[in-house]
Amino acid sequence: MNLTMPGTLGLTRELITPVLRDLVNRLDPMLRSVVSYHFGWCDEHGATLNGNPGKAIRPSLVLLAAEAAGARPQCAIPGAAAVELVHNFSLVHDDLMDRDECRRHRPTLWAVWGDPVAVLAGDALLSLAHEAILDSDSAHAGTAHTVLAVATRELIRGQSADTAFELRDDVTLGECLEMAWGKTAALMSASAVIGATLAGAPTPVRDALGVFGGNVGLAFQIIDDLLGIWGQPEVTGKPVYSDLRSCKKSLPITWAIEYGGAAGRELAAWMTDRAHAAGATDDELHAIAGLVERGGGRAWATEEAHRRAALAARAVADVRIVPGPACELHALAHYLLDRQA
Amino acid sequence: MNLTMPGTLGLTRELITPVLRDLVNRLDPMLRSVVSYHFGWCDEHGATLNGNPGKAIRPSLVLLAAEAAGARPQCAIPGAAAVELVHNFSLVHDDLMDRDECRRHRPTLWAVWGDPVAVLAGDALLSLAHEAILDSDSAHAGTAHTVLAVATRELIRGQSADTAFELRDDVTLGECLEMAWGKTAALMSASAVIGATLAGAPTPVRDALGVFGGNVGLAFQIIDDLLGIWGQPEVTGKPVYSDLRSCKKSLPITWAIEYGGAAGRELAAWMTDRAHAAGATDDELHAIAGLVERGGGRAWATEEAHRRAALAARAVADVRIVPGPACELHALAHYLLDRQA
Repeated sequence: MNLTMPGTLGLTRELITPVLRDLVNRLDPMLRSVVSYHFGWCDEHGATLNGNPGKAIRPSLVLLAAEAAGARPQCAIPGAAAVELVHNFSLVHDDLMDRDECRRHRPTLWAVWGDPVAVLAGDALLSLAHEAILDSDSAHAGTAHTVLAVATRELIRGQSADTAFELRDDVTLGECLEMAWGKTAALMSASAVIGATLAGAPTPVRDALGVFGGNVGLAFQIIDDLLGIWGQPEVTGKPVYSDLRSCKKSLPITWAIEYGGAAGRELAAWMTDRAHAAGATDDELHAIAGLVERGGGRAWATEEAHRRAALAARAVADVRIVPGPACELHALAHYLLDRQA
Repeated sequence: MNLTMPGTLGLTRELITPVLRDLVNRLDPMLRSVVSYHFGWCDEHGATLNGNPGKAIRPSLVLLAAEAAGARPQCAIPGAAAVELVHNFSLVHDDLMDRDECRRHRPTLWAVWGDPVAVLAGDALLSLAHEAILDSDSAHAGTAHTVLAVATRELIRGQSADTAFELRDDVTLGECLEMAWGKTAALMSASAVIGATLAGAPTPVRDALGVFGGNVGLAFQIIDDLLGIWGQPEVTGKPVYSDLRSCKKSLPITWAIEYGGAAGRELAAWMTDRAHAAGATDDELHAIAGLVERGGGRAWATEEAHRRAALAARAVADVRIVPGPACELHALAHYLLDRQA
């Protein structure tokens, strides 16, 4: 995989899509078409589409980690498909729980087919993830499978915390970082570990790649939180100021509330009235975004994302990994840091 | 496990509860307490209870199948815990999708904590099921794990069909039987296969036990459908005539509609008006239950359940299994056939 970003992501997509399609074809016709819609393979009537199936970041981490550990990426494809399925399971259920109506510029599953179908489609994706990794013939598949299962539990813990935070006005930055670890970083760390494991990498290499993936994951979530306030709706596919409108305890907001002085207190007071926030005008939300910025939340988050990326780079600096894939891992980290959507 | 019913079930519960508790303790405190409530270990405020954790039928099939294949039941405990977790995952999500407010005489998770928590609790149970079987050190754990994953997919297919049927007035008995296979029999068949697999049983024994479990599962679902109409609410913990009120396409109803002549046509016509059915009086539902009976649905279902139990018995008659556990498997089948809840 000797391509610059987002070439690696595209190549990963090419390698795993046939496997994902084979797995999805095991489902009954109804769920097969719903899941195919979610992946952008068809529209809601089943007509073939060349839609946006997502960025394939996690499976790219799996395949690049396997290559960095000296193996061919093919040995890690079952793991790559599995993490992509777990990720998409969480998207489908999160959209339902958060009542998000739009994903990848299209209506979400629950918005098209209702709650029960979205519950079932998420369940099916999680179940298929395990089938994916069970299809691996690697001698290390069992170990990789345990890593996947534990990361899934962490992911659910993160989402559980996210849900609980919605009812609280006293969420600390520490709690918020721990939630972000569970919700995003755990699966990205696991992706790198799974790739290294399926490649038969020694423990120091596995661990270093896990730290790399986890820090890239945290940086990724911080950028996501920045885009949730300052992202361009036409690029992100989400409504403008979406995280402010939903009073989300995202990292820049939580930082500004905890350390942002007067601006932070004003922001905290505004965030307590969820009904008001939901109906706020764009001008009002613009002013609230200004409070996050004046409270230092934007600057801290931007710096923290770069600090995490540097920690990721340092983690793999001292272990023996293959230089080419190592470069691509760094390029992937930078791509995620600079992304606009 | 040399006890008469429901002694076996109680002994299974004793063997798997510590394992289930250990797995549930891996969850974050919020989901841990929600899942503990679901299992009847505590009330909704977290106070310890000796509640009703369910019948432990599927894990009993796992342990008895392992014993029937000549192994100690202990070797199959991870599989027993796993099928119990998959079963409970499906209960939590089914209650949410069907908007059932009561389970085991208590409010369901979504009714107490809302939809997002019920989604997450079900997800956590499914994820823990995989952790359970990954904890097995059997040489055959991978094969057993694949059986579990495929059965979970079948279970989701069954629930998907059940959901789709709600919007249709032309569900055939064949479709309904296939749905029941997925929803109930697949996991019960898999339970027996998983027990035999973890015990290292030869293929003919595994297959025979799988046919046993599947037929017992279908009989079980048919009895469930009979109880959904004629069960005593104080025993089942469900509202009287619950399946009629919700216009459920259960097996006795579908049979009566398809083969029940004039009574079946009257029943079919009544079932098309869901809003009316939801608000029907007990007297009216009593009359509708009479239509299912006059249409032959009750007699057919009763006979079919016994026929399935006989098929189950025949499946294991010609393979070499240990007589004691074999007797207990037959006793379990009869217990399920005669149950009132």
